[in-house]
Amino acid sequence: MNRRTVSGLAGVIADETAISTVGKKGMGLSYRGYPIRDLAEHAEFEEVAYLLIYGRLPARRELDVYRTKLAALRGLPVKLKNILEQLPADAHPMHVLRTGCSALGTMEPETPDRHQRRIANRLIACLPSMLMYWYHFHTSNRSIETEIGGGSLAGHFLTLLHGNAPDETARHAVDVSLILYAEHEFNASTFSARVTASTGADFYSAITSAIGTLSGPLHGGANEEAMKLISRFASPDQAEEEIMLMLAKKERIMGFGHRVYKEEPDPRSDLVRVWSKKLAESSGRRLLYEVSERIEQVMLREKRLYPNLDFYSASAYHLCGIPTVMFTPLFVFARICGWSAHVIEQRSAGRLIRPSADYVGPEPARFKPIEQRG
Amino acid sequence: MNRRTVSGLAGVIADETAISTVGKKGMGLSYRGYPIRDLAEHAEFEEVAYLLIYGRLPARRELDVYRTKLAALRGLPVKLKNILEQLPADAHPMHVLRTGCSALGTMEPETPDRHQRRIANRLIACLPSMLMYWYHFHTSNRSIETEIGGGSLAGHFLTLLHGNAPDETARHAVDVSLILYAEHEFNASTFSARVTASTGADFYSAITSAIGTLSGPLHGGANEEAMKLISRFASPDQAEEEIMLMLAKKERIMGFGHRVYKEEPDPRSDLVRVWSKKLAESSGRRLLYEVSERIEQVMLREKRLYPNLDFYSASAYHLCGIPTVMFTPLFVFARICGWSAHVIEQRSAGRLIRPSADYVGPEPARFKPIEQRG
Repeated sequence: MNRRTVSGLAGVIADETAISTVGKKGMGLSYRGYPIRDLAEHAEFEEVAYLLIYGRLPARRELDVYRTKLAALRGLPVKLKNILEQLPADAHPMHVLRTGCSALGTMEPETPDRHQRRIANRLIACLPSMLMYWYHFHTSNRSIETEIGGGSLAGHFLTLLHGNAPDETARHAVDVSLILYAEHEFNASTFSARVTASTGADFYSAITSAIGTLSGPLHGGANEEAMKLISRFASPDQAEEEIMLMLAKKERIMGFGHRVYKEEPDPRSDLVRVWSKKLAESSGRRLLYEVSERIEQVMLREKRLYPNLDFYSASAYHLCGIPTVMFTPLFVFARICGWSAHVIEQRSAGRLIRPSADYVGPEPARFKPIEQRG
Repeated sequence: MNRRTVSGLAGVIADETAISTVGKKGMGLSYRGYPIRDLAEHAEFEEVAYLLIYGRLPARRELDVYRTKLAALRGLPVKLKNILEQLPADAHPMHVLRTGCSALGTMEPETPDRHQRRIANRLIACLPSMLMYWYHFHTSNRSIETEIGGGSLAGHFLTLLHGNAPDETARHAVDVSLILYAEHEFNASTFSARVTASTGADFYSAITSAIGTLSGPLHGGANEEAMKLISRFASPDQAEEEIMLMLAKKERIMGFGHRVYKEEPDPRSDLVRVWSKKLAESSGRRLLYEVSERIEQVMLREKRLYPNLDFYSASAYHLCGIPTVMFTPLFVFARICGWSAHVIEQRSAGRLIRPSADYVGPEPARFKPIEQRG
């Protein structure tokens, strides 16, 4: 029993991947070799989805075809709508998506004809539709049409949410955040998708696992927790004062620190912060941004901790008029690209993921039949 | 890049556990310290469920209370029935269970009042109800009542399936198989439940992941594959002949070999084989058992491979009148106990499960804006 247990598999190399690098020397965060900054500043989300799913950047005509294909996959089967109507109004949207993804898998099962990339595209296109259908059914008692218009996923989502086309700053901000959330190597949700895929389970099983895993507050739920935090303060000074008190009480500040980025900032934080700032300036609603900036300064000064992607995403999403409970679902709409790429990779090269455990339980015990027990 | 990648995490100690040992020197397979043979020969499934969920064997009065509690949890909410009715008749039962478990999580969410062991018991009690409700709705157009009678889970399942009480040999055989399937350390489905639980996700998310993971042919699906194999042969001689041909073609024989049991037999195989034999003798239908026995001999002689639990479970379940597509669901009804124990353990001691990857993808690439691409 000399083998060392690495709790949480921290630093353990679980497999090879060709999809992304995270904090790798000379590469930083890159998708398929491309630096995250270039993708966030010069690409659009559908281009990045294509890159992750097909392994290379599309040419213009390929991207046009791909966008048209995705737009045509935004409708929902009637039976799925019926199911979404049965899910309670107060369910968490992540559990709605988990159920919707699983249910779709019974209606449009994976077959040789309906292959894995086709299912990936279907889920990229219709998970936002599922959430919006359920949301409007319960909040305004309307059965909305989800297969509307072309355009980007970001625009589609905001249009369904608000009932009208978004302004371009908001649409672009959401588009960039989707790029930043699209992939991040062997994070917990992606790893759960790979574990599920490793038994030969169907594509929907793997994605359903990932959605459930992402829902936890230590993973995708962090952006919702960050929002709850920053919305408590009426001024940057109040934020500083109360954060100092929280730190003194050793409370956890959500949106800071990361398993992988320890010595360096999360490169995605600066890329989403510029959009949070733009939205604050264009809307004239500066408080959340200024509070966020102050908390960032305090955390760096007091704890040497940097914000992660979730922190400035919170204020950006809020300024786009997105309800807080939909922050983690937006993470899903993006990360489904990375999950899909990893499921495809796991299937092509990986084997059953089955680790071992160190036993620390009771010594061998003699079984007493129930009649002889106390 | 000198760190060695262990594909599939084979032999990697992912964490500690106090729940079971698998092939451990001096203990073999044990649940909470008790040898599997004693449990299979002297306990009943509900006793083992209690052992796994609460950490110790119940006294007689505790077991009686527990059985009564489980029996009272067998009903289904109307909204869940409505959802099961929307799932297609030709869906795989594992995907029905995956969806039903996820949907129940939106209707009876985890809260401080509805705590984790209560949810575990609810799922132990009502997953068979979900499957049987969906099955009868689609095969005989009936909305069956699932909260019927007391008695064991094995008896409840067989009664709902066949519409009348099973004979005691069949009930006992299923009961023993449930004990054998109830727990097996860090197998892939259990590990996926722990990965999901490690982010702080809710109990249903973890179990939903596990169901999806179990559905794969390299894991829970193996008992269905074993059935397809043994039912192809009209005699032991024909079985031997064709297995030899399959081996010559290097085809995989399902139900043999195991990631953990390599040098020794799976101790569960003998324990279920006696029940397969009893059922063959009491029914006078000996073919499947005799075919299975011959295949076991051939595999040992030719490949030095032992049958795993899935192999003789197949003939036993078939002789109990259980449709092949329900073999893996029976695995769920049992393993939910182990999954639940592991989720509870992961939550109490574990941390975020987030391994790393070795990057083998493209070198750093210069991003070309789309207008400049070919």
